[in-house]
Amino acid sequence: MEVQISESVPFYDTDCGGVVSNIAYLRYIEKARMALFVRMGMDAGKMTSTGIFPAVVRTEIDYLAPGRLGDEIQIVVRLDSVEKARAHCSFQLQVQGSDGTPRLLVKATQTVALVQTQTGRPQRMPAEWQDWV
Amino acid sequence: MEVQISESVPFYDTDCGGVVSNIAYLRYIEKARMALFVRMGMDAGKMTSTGIFPAVVRTEIDYLAPGRLGDEIQIVVRLDSVEKARAHCSFQLQVQGSDGTPRLLVKATQTVALVQTQTGRPQRMPAEWQDWV
Amino acid sequence: MEVQISESVPFYDTDCGGVVSNIAYLRYIEKARMALFVRMGMDAGKMTSTGIFPAVVRTEIDYLAPGRLGDEIQIVVRLDSVEKARAHCSFQLQVQGSDGTPRLLVKATQTVALVQTQTGRPQRMPAEWQDWV
Amino acid sequence: MEVQISESVPFYDTDCGGVVSNIAYLRYIEKARMALFVRMGMDAGKMTSTGIFPAVVRTEIDYLAPGRLGDEIQIVVRLDSVEKARAHCSFQLQVQGSDGTPRLLVKATQTVALVQTQTGRPQRMPAEWQDWV
Repeated sequence: MEVQISESVPFYDTDCGGVVSNIAYLRYIEKARMALFVRMGMDAGKMTSTGIFPAVVRTEIDYLAPGRLGDEIQIVVRLDSVEKARAHCSFQLQVQGSDGTPRLLVKATQTVALVQTQTGRPQRMPAEWQDWV
Repeated sequence: MEVQISESVPFYDTDCGGVVSNIAYLRYIEKARMALFVRMGMDAGKMTSTGIFPAVVRTEIDYLAPGRLGDEIQIVVRLDSVEKARAHCSFQLQVQGSDGTPRLLVKATQTVALVQTQTGRPQRMPAEWQDWV
Repeated sequence: MEVQISESVPFYDTDCGGVVSNIAYLRYIEKARMALFVRMGMDAGKMTSTGIFPAVVRTEIDYLAPGRLGDEIQIVVRLDSVEKARAHCSFQLQVQGSDGTPRLLVKATQTVALVQTQTGRPQRMPAEWQDWV
Repeated sequence: MEVQISESVPFYDTDCGGVVSNIAYLRYIEKARMALFVRMGMDAGKMTSTGIFPAVVRTEIDYLAPGRLGDEIQIVVRLDSVEKARAHCSFQLQVQGSDGTPRLLVKATQTVALVQTQTGRPQRMPAEWQDWV
């Protein structure tokens, strides 16, 4: 499964180097991952009622080119694989160049667990998530 | 002039009190204000080429009810008045309640100046902005 | 009661205008307010065990001069008054100028309530907080 | 070279899962890296005057245990190696457990380049940085 969202770069995501802060991209990635989870049946209401929340256990992120104020960034997230207690996602963040060709700014992977916040216990991934890979 | 945008509450905008952080609403407000400015002819490209950027000089914000993870927040920004070197905007942030009636979470006002970043000098507001009030 | 903390401006608190983002100062203010509350007997451990958390219900903030990357910002918070269910704090944020004289960047006031997060109910302010004004 | 800083977890770094947001640790890491760079002779004043800023080109981060509101997090950053146009740093973030033994929350590595912000051009690493490994 693949989901795409779009974010326009606001002031607070840039820094005094004139480009998007390395940290800001993690916010775009989190929004994309939440959109993916909603599509797979795990929305905010369900998380709150069950007390089971996603926890990022690992991120790898490569910054390839700088984003700038006002850029319309396309974030594509893909569910790569699902293990018993881990899901692996990959992300591509790009902008449309002035000549219309896409320019890749950032690529990343994240490993996510599901945790019962009362107990801190990791949960099994939903069986049907295998079907979404 | 009035512009409306919508933001879905992500994890990083909530805090361990279980609700949206007071600081996060300022991000929604900044996004709405940028959308207003784009509508009034001042987009990121123009800011970058002229070196003239908006600077918030005052914010008043009242937190009336808590927002939560996944809430779809509607942010309405209105240009209230324009002086020689100041523009005044007001903001209303609300969610649709489960019974369909809107619930006001936050209201705020901001005063904005335009600053030449090279010199730090405040600029006159564009003459045509008066027409947008 | 008055408490002072100091924060050095990191990259992620600046924006592409070359100065500290208006939103970042709210983070410095929140840190100062937490330090004040710890001094008045309400630390994170107590908040977590009682489930009673401070909720900002109003902020007024004036941006007087721009802060920059690496600035060592002094934040002074003062408990101004305590009502039955509200406490009022004021904040002054300044840097030492190159000639040694302090320069006021930001001043602000906040009104804070205490809320039981399970019930959402506001709580009475601790009686002894009156003594700290 | 190794530098250590300490950060107390504020509200805005936690999320509604009750723990520190995965994104917040990147802020602690950035503060530690800036402290390291200051120690190696590259402070904010020098960056601003030369227009040469560090740019993170890759981050790997593992989240091992959750941090919580008020935790006093120790961040140790170490300069691991320096290539012609790349520096590699590693980070360990830990808290003191209630029994006094340290608990590792997060470990990470970052690769950093130095970029001339006017031209976007990567710069050679300062020759003396080799001595700091």
